[in-house]
Amino acid sequence: MQTDEAVLNREALLDEKCINTIRFLAVDMVQNAKSGHPGTPMGAATMAYVLWDRFLKYHPRNPTWADRDRFILSPGHASALLYSLLYLTGYDLSLDDLKQFRQWGSKTPGHPEYHVTPGVETTTGPLGQGFTNGVGMALAERWLATHYNRPGHDIINHYTYAIVSDGDMQEGVTSEAASLAGTLRLGKLIYLYDDNDVQLSGPTNVAFSENVARRFDAYGWQVIGPLNGFDEHAIDAAIKEAQAETERPSLIICKTVIGYGSPAQATAKVHGEPLGEAGVRAAKETLGWPLEPTFYVPDDALAHMRKAVERGSEVEEDWNRRFEAYRRDNPTEAGELQAGLRGELPAGWDEGLEDFFPPDSKPMATRNASGEVLNALVKRIHALTGGSADVSPSTKTTLVGYGDFGWQDYCGHNIHFGVREHAMGAIVGGMALHGGMIPYAATFLTFSDYMRPPMRLAALMGIRVIYLFTHDSIGMGQDGPTHQPIEQLMSLRTIPHLTVIRPADATEAAEAWRAALLNNDGPTALVMTRQNVPVLDRTVYPSAAGLQRGGYILWENAVTAEPQVILVGTGSEVHIALEAGKQLAAEGIHVRVISLPSWELFDRQPADYRERIFPPHVRARVAVEAGITLGWEHYVGLDGAVVGMHGFGASAPAEVLYEQFGITAEHVAQEAKGLLQREPRGKTP
Amino acid sequence: MQTDEAVLNREALLDEKCINTIRFLAVDMVQNAKSGHPGTPMGAATMAYVLWDRFLKYHPRNPTWADRDRFILSPGHASALLYSLLYLTGYDLSLDDLKQFRQWGSKTPGHPEYHVTPGVETTTGPLGQGFTNGVGMALAERWLATHYNRPGHDIINHYTYAIVSDGDMQEGVTSEAASLAGTLRLGKLIYLYDDNDVQLSGPTNVAFSENVARRFDAYGWQVIGPLNGFDEHAIDAAIKEAQAETERPSLIICKTVIGYGSPAQATAKVHGEPLGEAGVRAAKETLGWPLEPTFYVPDDALAHMRKAVERGSEVEEDWNRRFEAYRRDNPTEAGELQAGLRGELPAGWDEGLEDFFPPDSKPMATRNASGEVLNALVKRIHALTGGSADVSPSTKTTLVGYGDFGWQDYCGHNIHFGVREHAMGAIVGGMALHGGMIPYAATFLTFSDYMRPPMRLAALMGIRVIYLFTHDSIGMGQDGPTHQPIEQLMSLRTIPHLTVIRPADATEAAEAWRAALLNNDGPTALVMTRQNVPVLDRTVYPSAAGLQRGGYILWENAVTAEPQVILVGTGSEVHIALEAGKQLAAEGIHVRVISLPSWELFDRQPADYRERIFPPHVRARVAVEAGITLGWEHYVGLDGAVVGMHGFGASAPAEVLYEQFGITAEHVAQEAKGLLQREPRGKTP
Repeated sequence: MQTDEAVLNREALLDEKCINTIRFLAVDMVQNAKSGHPGTPMGAATMAYVLWDRFLKYHPRNPTWADRDRFILSPGHASALLYSLLYLTGYDLSLDDLKQFRQWGSKTPGHPEYHVTPGVETTTGPLGQGFTNGVGMALAERWLATHYNRPGHDIINHYTYAIVSDGDMQEGVTSEAASLAGTLRLGKLIYLYDDNDVQLSGPTNVAFSENVARRFDAYGWQVIGPLNGFDEHAIDAAIKEAQAETERPSLIICKTVIGYGSPAQATAKVHGEPLGEAGVRAAKETLGWPLEPTFYVPDDALAHMRKAVERGSEVEEDWNRRFEAYRRDNPTEAGELQAGLRGELPAGWDEGLEDFFPPDSKPMATRNASGEVLNALVKRIHALTGGSADVSPSTKTTLVGYGDFGWQDYCGHNIHFGVREHAMGAIVGGMALHGGMIPYAATFLTFSDYMRPPMRLAALMGIRVIYLFTHDSIGMGQDGPTHQPIEQLMSLRTIPHLTVIRPADATEAAEAWRAALLNNDGPTALVMTRQNVPVLDRTVYPSAAGLQRGGYILWENAVTAEPQVILVGTGSEVHIALEAGKQLAAEGIHVRVISLPSWELFDRQPADYRERIFPPHVRARVAVEAGITLGWEHYVGLDGAVVGMHGFGASAPAEVLYEQFGITAEHVAQEAKGLLQREPRGKTP
Repeated sequence: MQTDEAVLNREALLDEKCINTIRFLAVDMVQNAKSGHPGTPMGAATMAYVLWDRFLKYHPRNPTWADRDRFILSPGHASALLYSLLYLTGYDLSLDDLKQFRQWGSKTPGHPEYHVTPGVETTTGPLGQGFTNGVGMALAERWLATHYNRPGHDIINHYTYAIVSDGDMQEGVTSEAASLAGTLRLGKLIYLYDDNDVQLSGPTNVAFSENVARRFDAYGWQVIGPLNGFDEHAIDAAIKEAQAETERPSLIICKTVIGYGSPAQATAKVHGEPLGEAGVRAAKETLGWPLEPTFYVPDDALAHMRKAVERGSEVEEDWNRRFEAYRRDNPTEAGELQAGLRGELPAGWDEGLEDFFPPDSKPMATRNASGEVLNALVKRIHALTGGSADVSPSTKTTLVGYGDFGWQDYCGHNIHFGVREHAMGAIVGGMALHGGMIPYAATFLTFSDYMRPPMRLAALMGIRVIYLFTHDSIGMGQDGPTHQPIEQLMSLRTIPHLTVIRPADATEAAEAWRAALLNNDGPTALVMTRQNVPVLDRTVYPSAAGLQRGGYILWENAVTAEPQVILVGTGSEVHIALEAGKQLAAEGIHVRVISLPSWELFDRQPADYRERIFPPHVRARVAVEAGITLGWEHYVGLDGAVVGMHGFGASAPAEVLYEQFGITAEHVAQEAKGLLQREPRGKTP
């Protein structure tokens, strides 16, 4: 019979073997690809192993099981670490996949990508984003748990874990998110900080000498450590301590050595380049690892780690049983929760949207129209939840009667992100990734600049997040050029897979919300005015439902003949185009006016629709939009004209600005007449 | 004879009168404009008065005097506070100007604007930016002082002050900047924090419950307070304490009441709207201020505050005398410093740039070429200083032999910003605003998204900042879509007044640096490859100096006849265009290949030049760029074609990606032939 000590020793040896398996799979992946980042996987293998082997709740055969713990590798450049874990624990990832690291079409791209690799909860790489996504996931967990759990039915109850890095700690978005997580008391957020004192350019302290522990304490986090990041027992105890703290998020500071075991360990050399053959050999020798074969996986290590499948299966089956009991007692809630987790919208959710604003509505800002629609929608779509970066009264995004989300009431629908646009963007991304919520985030259009990185990631991941941007042009008036978006609208249009919609009036605003909710595989940016605009009488003009095709003919005086000139605008400038069109019509010119609220929706239409709206041979086209003109040639070409902004705005009342910058019906009409009189210049090929 | 106490009482009364003058001028400005933010001026008037009356070193008649203290109002929405101060202390701003608050063409726009109002050191409004600009100014002060001061000659020696707000504290960029300021031990940075517990949406604690004092302590700042922000003596003592601390930046926490004196004080109601007539009256009554006239300025208050002119004149004259003594002892340094402060480049600074890379140079990445040029330039241009967001080895921006900037050596030219792109952008802005430095900031092009807000402000202010963005396309390879810029190039082009330059090879890279340095009234973004590209032999091809005009004909096979087709590209894709051109030429097609490194420089050329390059009637045009295609219609119109990206990239070796995404010479040639065969579709007007 073995002594207890012998058992312990054998277990410790097996643990060490598993850790080295993780470590050297990562090293071999990078070396094999001749590209990648070996340093962090080598340093963080121990903490990752302890977490995945002893704490993390997951089922490798069903990576999207609802109540799993979420795990984020915020320093996405350490992707090889994650792929090792996913392979060893039994996700649908083979050793061959690991050998295809960083190759075209592989399941193991350079940075972890959501939807590409099973088990990857979010796409990471741009630093700080993963850290912040996790805050959104933990927020979603609290919200769903509070809404759906019932006494005796603990249906939603999981942790959100992440490994975070020195680089994450330096990014401002992390600070924003950490401060908010502390304020919201997200006690089930547990982050392991890989504190290795080295970054790409060299030692961390050249640029970063702050006391991270004290800083997170200031945010209201529990800070554990610094502890030895190679000491399994210390990590184990720390995670238990973190779990025991239910009110404060926890940061576990693990001191590690980047590139642990390599001759160049603890230097920037091991950050972002393969170790090289000699380096790999030296590291394996140092840590007592066989030099051959590469991608060596000891049978007992694999067998031990693959127990995750059995563990996961049991825990999921247990949950399934508990969920069935919950469903029996709470059929409505269970149905709503499951539909929400699947991202489904309830039947009839958009009924009547087309008649939301009657024909005789008084002029209103589209931000106000948006606010009314949003408040109607939340009554039908419980998952719809969001907030603003301290501008809810201005963006009209308060859900009246739906409470404020906070530690006093995790049921609230209104999230106060504070003046933290960047974190807001990444937090709503985390909420969408978690599932069960359809999040929106609001600020002024100018400040969309603060949150481009998470918007880009949402577009890359194809998740349904709704950004609401108000104060969408010089029409916001006297706050002046710092607050007047000029280039933002066009620059949002340049982001692939982001749908941008700028409605012309209240009726289009309602349709814009419909389009945003229907867009369930990508983010949508809704762009709204601060100033009042007329509500188009849809008994006179065609239905605003034309917005669903991106653009439509709003008015023309030449239904039989072809138009001589096309005027096209978006948002508040559609009314200018319309007025110009009527002026031209009064002069006997055949004119067509197009409302083009969404370029992305329009460009997705079949060619025959697009060519019906913009007949290819009608080249006298004038676009009008109170934003930068660059980009409009996409529709008006080299022979058209664009009435818009050529520089920054100014501080003055909106109507003065429109006049001074020449964004007027008169100017549009004049440009149109100029085109009609101009000599042909182009020789088409 | 009066007792001392009576004198003190009289002085205290006069101080109070001055403070109320500042306060109510701001209130009346907002009320008169029917727009603006009265709350912060009312709450922060005391701290502003104490600073400006007793500490700040400035000369209202010479607002740009070199060694003045810098003052920043980071919550720019409180602009009325600053305008009151500027008027009362004798800057070139009249009472009538205050009455034109927020009107077209006035000197008192909604937010303080650099270059519009004398005495405004930087444009503020977007929160966190002013806070961070100040770090750049304090950094510049240390750098210049260390380089130019000599024993007995303390020529550069001033403080950088700011008033900062709750909103600033929540922005991530502030966290980044504060952490770096602590690391760099910028002891002459003194910020007064207007801690009033209220923000736009309501009470601050809904979103912000952290311990700010502890957080700043963690960054390595001296934290003073919280103190009563209406207690002049406490503020006075705190600023003295801050000045006495020479190693740590200081944060003075002043508890104030937003909208102090108004019936709605301490609520969000007074944040961003005029008080209304009744509110103004009540506030004036509460604080014992005459109701009439509006814009009331007591003679003794004005006389007292206008003493700033005399004080300023004396202190500047003293400095002028000291500078002359310095010049006698150190004529070279004095000349260099003054030229630097004027933003002048030394004679001969760009000599030989055109021959920097010989015709037989081996293929090289433009980032490498850029690094070589930069290192040559710094030997001639001492003011050239900068760094990267932890990617100097990758962006090739290390100035070899020029030391690292840090508290151990403020002489260093290499600034380590850490993984803090956003703060980096705003800090280099502050350096440029300070004067005496030509700063650059480097990161990967994708991460330009993290720093758009300060880039926009630099463009709005028209300051010379150079951004260097490398890894400029899918050509960066295996790091995958998170790191591959797609939309960034085009979206940078949408920013007004920002010059974007993407050189095709090493020779254009040298010219790009020349253009960036010559662009002294706006920022420039230089965009460089990670991968090698051929160096164009300029004995065969026209001079790379064509870059200075934005675009030029690189090659054509039809010098007498007109081209049938035009191929145009930027950066690494110019070589693809060239190869395609030669393929087409081999088939007997008359083709022109254009290198178009900078749209902004090109569009600024006279029409005859532009039409010489792009003859208007030649419409068979193919653009090629490894970025989003949207926007290229600006040059190729509706009848051309664009070979580029339509979605995000992928993780694979660069050459595989170019092939897979079809950005190849074959594809370009095929598109060109397609255009030549196509039926004419357009009917030009």
